[in-house]
Amino acid sequence: AAPRARAPKKPASAPAPGAEPALDGRVRAVVDAVLPSIDAGRFAAKALVGVPFEVTAHVFADGHDVVRAMLCWWNDNGGDTDGAATEAPLQAVEMTALGNDVWHAALVPAAPGRLRYRVLAWVDHFRSWRTELQRRVDADDIRLAALAGAALADQAAVRALAGPSPADADAGALRAWAEALHRRAAPAGGADIDIDAVKALALDGRIAAAADRHPDRHLQARSEPLPLVVDRARAGFSAWYELFPRSAGDTPGRHGTFRDVIARLPYIAAMGFDVLYLPPIHPIGRAKRKGRNNALAAEADDVGSPWAIGASEGGHTEILPALGTADDLRALVAAAREHGLELALDIAFQCAPDHPWVAQHPAWFRRRPDGSVQYAENPPKKYQDIYPFDFETDDWRALWAALKGVFDHWIGQGVAIFRVDNPHTKAFPFWAWCIDAIKREHAGVLFLAEAFTRPKVMHRLAKLGFSQSYTYFTWRRSKQELTEYFTELYATPGRDYFRPNVWPNTPDILNDQLHAAPRPVFMTRLLLAATLSPNYGIYGPAFELMERTPRNPGSEEYLDSEKYQLRHWSLDAPDTLAGFIAQVNQARHAHAALQGGAELRFFPTDNDALLAYGRRSADGASAVIGVVNLDPRLTQSGWVDVDAAWLGLGDAPTFEVDDLLSGRTFTWRGGGNFVILDPADMPAHLLHARAGAPGMRP
Amino acid sequence: AAPRARAPKKPASAPAPGAEPALDGRVRAVVDAVLPSIDAGRFAAKALVGVPFEVTAHVFADGHDVVRAMLCWWNDNGGDTDGAATEAPLQAVEMTALGNDVWHAALVPAAPGRLRYRVLAWVDHFRSWRTELQRRVDADDIRLAALAGAALADQAAVRALAGPSPADADAGALRAWAEALHRRAAPAGGADIDIDAVKALALDGRIAAAADRHPDRHLQARSEPLPLVVDRARAGFSAWYELFPRSAGDTPGRHGTFRDVIARLPYIAAMGFDVLYLPPIHPIGRAKRKGRNNALAAEADDVGSPWAIGASEGGHTEILPALGTADDLRALVAAAREHGLELALDIAFQCAPDHPWVAQHPAWFRRRPDGSVQYAENPPKKYQDIYPFDFETDDWRALWAALKGVFDHWIGQGVAIFRVDNPHTKAFPFWAWCIDAIKREHAGVLFLAEAFTRPKVMHRLAKLGFSQSYTYFTWRRSKQELTEYFTELYATPGRDYFRPNVWPNTPDILNDQLHAAPRPVFMTRLLLAATLSPNYGIYGPAFELMERTPRNPGSEEYLDSEKYQLRHWSLDAPDTLAGFIAQVNQARHAHAALQGGAELRFFPTDNDALLAYGRRSADGASAVIGVVNLDPRLTQSGWVDVDAAWLGLGDAPTFEVDDLLSGRTFTWRGGGNFVILDPADMPAHLLHARAGAPGMRP
Repeated sequence: AAPRARAPKKPASAPAPGAEPALDGRVRAVVDAVLPSIDAGRFAAKALVGVPFEVTAHVFADGHDVVRAMLCWWNDNGGDTDGAATEAPLQAVEMTALGNDVWHAALVPAAPGRLRYRVLAWVDHFRSWRTELQRRVDADDIRLAALAGAALADQAAVRALAGPSPADADAGALRAWAEALHRRAAPAGGADIDIDAVKALALDGRIAAAADRHPDRHLQARSEPLPLVVDRARAGFSAWYELFPRSAGDTPGRHGTFRDVIARLPYIAAMGFDVLYLPPIHPIGRAKRKGRNNALAAEADDVGSPWAIGASEGGHTEILPALGTADDLRALVAAAREHGLELALDIAFQCAPDHPWVAQHPAWFRRRPDGSVQYAENPPKKYQDIYPFDFETDDWRALWAALKGVFDHWIGQGVAIFRVDNPHTKAFPFWAWCIDAIKREHAGVLFLAEAFTRPKVMHRLAKLGFSQSYTYFTWRRSKQELTEYFTELYATPGRDYFRPNVWPNTPDILNDQLHAAPRPVFMTRLLLAATLSPNYGIYGPAFELMERTPRNPGSEEYLDSEKYQLRHWSLDAPDTLAGFIAQVNQARHAHAALQGGAELRFFPTDNDALLAYGRRSADGASAVIGVVNLDPRLTQSGWVDVDAAWLGLGDAPTFEVDDLLSGRTFTWRGGGNFVILDPADMPAHLLHARAGAPGMRP
Repeated sequence: AAPRARAPKKPASAPAPGAEPALDGRVRAVVDAVLPSIDAGRFAAKALVGVPFEVTAHVFADGHDVVRAMLCWWNDNGGDTDGAATEAPLQAVEMTALGNDVWHAALVPAAPGRLRYRVLAWVDHFRSWRTELQRRVDADDIRLAALAGAALADQAAVRALAGPSPADADAGALRAWAEALHRRAAPAGGADIDIDAVKALALDGRIAAAADRHPDRHLQARSEPLPLVVDRARAGFSAWYELFPRSAGDTPGRHGTFRDVIARLPYIAAMGFDVLYLPPIHPIGRAKRKGRNNALAAEADDVGSPWAIGASEGGHTEILPALGTADDLRALVAAAREHGLELALDIAFQCAPDHPWVAQHPAWFRRRPDGSVQYAENPPKKYQDIYPFDFETDDWRALWAALKGVFDHWIGQGVAIFRVDNPHTKAFPFWAWCIDAIKREHAGVLFLAEAFTRPKVMHRLAKLGFSQSYTYFTWRRSKQELTEYFTELYATPGRDYFRPNVWPNTPDILNDQLHAAPRPVFMTRLLLAATLSPNYGIYGPAFELMERTPRNPGSEEYLDSEKYQLRHWSLDAPDTLAGFIAQVNQARHAHAALQGGAELRFFPTDNDALLAYGRRSADGASAVIGVVNLDPRLTQSGWVDVDAAWLGLGDAPTFEVDDLLSGRTFTWRGGGNFVILDPADMPAHLLHARAGAPGMRP
């Protein structure tokens, strides 16, 4: 089907203009402030398979009657009709009142896909009747109330028998009780009434439960359905390893291949990574090709930048011949899977001047007044080797279809994760349409937005559907910066749709704190990334081999960057961080507190060089404490207070913790833990409160 | 027309289900987070005639192009079609960027009524072109850019001449400039180019301004229209005086009348009040009538509670004969207006057992199993003299029409302000429909919600349309309580729809801080109400005469309450607060900082008995400082810091302030003002920074 821009998504039950229904004015219950809600349902919230999706709402009614509420969800069939209005929900769970008219429930998604959720609420006459009865003291009032209750029970019995699966037992119990209550409250022949017995019978808890199962919901209030995207677990918990396949060969100077990457897989898997991410694998433009260290002119043997996409061999759906064939790629996908790794490809929507599309689709590019194609520029800087697409072209439908086709092609090759290069320089409506269309066909496909730009723009991309997003982590170093930034990342409403993926380095970012930095800097940056965020990644082997020389002082570019040349890496360097990384990734896999849906809280320390924080799993059963010495040169010590209750450690005065880095065991308490960390030894604690430790929640 | 429940209000431009339009995918600008927005446009924000209505939005586009944005609004015709989509706006103003992609504009409503507002934004090619040109250094680039700019100007000239009022001058200037630019950048015969002259001409500021006036908006993004209710100024600035007309007579024991109230008007007007509010004026039920001090049985001469509405003489549209006739009421309305006072009536939707509707409309009331009408109760308490309406009745349309008819009747008598009794015990959909229907017919009618209930319920009523709301002020006494509560009341999103009306006392609430309280307590409670909130009221003459005896110790009921009996008040009591109240109301009328739309900020003091705060008008031109000694018995002193910049007092080291209570003048500064307040003298300062005082904004 030809692409169409996605209209602002309205809850599908919105009444058509001119067709405002005469709602039933007797609906007294109110549902308000259903959360999560991303821009009132304009965008989908995000959830993970197997992780409870928590919903709160304001629910109340006029007066003093008792209300009840349900959280329900439905499959989103993608159509314009509102299944949520008429069909039976996929799941439904009764909500509980938290106080102050705030109600709560959680549902656990079972499979990836799109859902709609809404809250239903009603004034419950049986519950209201029972609540009033409990407070009644006047005999005549109790007698009349008993008769009213009997009538309510008879009505509940009728409802119990209606519908597709009649509840005969409930109906029978309700009817028998109604009869007994009537007999006692209005005995034949005007016999004496035992009012205490009437009240006791009327308050029978089993009958109340039976009535609860068959409520009168015909005057039910319903919130507008809100959209939810459920992703597979990897969207919420992943460790990425970025690698240039052309540098993966075992012989210096030889162009690496996908087969070389296959040989490298055991090394990567041993470090515990989940995602293997490759920069663009397509033919590289020859026109205006850049040389080593971004030189304007390339030498004859220069390999060029993988992001200068397209040459005579083809464009975004072709493979650079030097890397191998489509068969080789599929072999890599399969071999990676055997090593517990999933392949991610880089999608960069831009063309080298010799990309076939430049000649085939002149309308997709802007022209300068001299007729030449407009290259990318940010005056006075010029990027003559890159042609951006013109998203204002009249031929936008064909352009959109072609770009989506790029994803479709690689999905066909077994790839299900895409890292998207600079999505913020492409029109936003395209992403909304493209990601939604792909995920409706392949619910498991994930997209990582590489947009290092302004906050509102990054958030917009996440709202439009990107599964994960790069962050500012690389530039957040101090205790205060880290505390503020991660507190923000875990706060609503952002956390309902923006999943951070944090990187200590990338091929584009050798932050100056890594320039000629000592080993503890690399260790702490890795540990912070891996334990503050459930999604993180490194660009290797540059990272584990502590590549740390910038092209120029103060530059964030690597000297002799792989972006422009082949490199050969000595993986067996004695000071490699591979072992440390393996230890950290092992801790991540072993403890739910470091996985998807886990929460974060910072803890006070009396030393600004010591950053302390807690993580706990969504179900509260797993807890980990991190304490990091941010000073890479000096031993630092201080006192750390932790929130033991928040960590689920109960109120025992002390608890045992295992250090997942040193293997040592300590006795900790809520307030006043002395910590001393020598960076030359190990710059951090990563403490796990053992299951079964005193005070630990079972 | 028969009432219908109001459907959840969708922005009228919502595409109909099944009719999702193929939007233009080339729209690159984004408008997000338009504020104020009450539940994403489900409810209307509130504004005041003459007070700037401030709107912010997130506006941006992909890439680096320059965006522009407009705030526009339209009359809301009440139909289901979206005038805002196609018609020319009533007003439009260009927004300005505040940084971080947040944009701002304000519009000043000219008349009461319903509006819709939305933000429009577009990628501005002329501005983008000019911004890039400013940074260009390469001669060839400048030459090509000049040619591109000339083409853009020619297009702008075409737009200048299109539409209903062609801008000939702009079109001429743009064309002439385009021609000159072309001539200089591409001279005939290949003559030499003066590139600096080309750039200087290209950057002509007057041409940029002309191009700005005729932007290319064909790929414009539009936010969904949001509803706004504009009220007359009184909705945002009012001092209420509540009085029982039956106690307004000059002779003890004689039932007061509307004519007696007319005689009382000069007294009330002299105190500076704006609204005179009367408890229900209808026939009072005789069945189950309550006696003095809420006695279960009334004596023969007991007058009953005005809230027990309806008797053989009639119900909600009749006047208690003892008060006078409809002519007398209209005379009172007119006489009040001559004294600068507006009459407000109390609407209490409940019936005495002998209300005519009980017999005429049995379906509007619930029955008990013995066939009797269900009276109000909150077990074990019973209110046999009050029959609530059953809002779940099948006859709800007739009930709704009759209740709206009550308002319509009194509007017909010249009343335009209603204080609604316990609206939270009536179905919410009724209020949404009723208030909207009335305000569409009479935009100036105002409703005050008397709902002393849970926060979410009170906020719901305000969202549904109530113009003002009672608050918890009566129970907020300490510096911390007052600071927290008023900070909350002035915070978004509440302040966009919830207008507090604060009362130191009501006939139902003699808070225990007033029990046997000394005069300074009454003074400070009055002053706090009148200067912390633009809307406030008192129940008099009980308040100014310092009536302070509860029915029982700890009760909030007055002894010998006017709710159940006639009272005679000695208005000339020597210690009356009438003079003080007049002084405070005079200050309110004289200074915009105490009026509608004004802001509030609390200031630090080093003494918890001293509460200090600033008010400033919406336009920043008027500022007032309050300092209140909350200790009614002891002299208190301390240091007060004020935020002089926020108050608009500039950065002069000192400024002169006039005390509007004592008439004295002081020299103040930002930090470190010594204050000493003897409650026996005057328990507060109310300081006005004189216009023309050093540092005062002109």
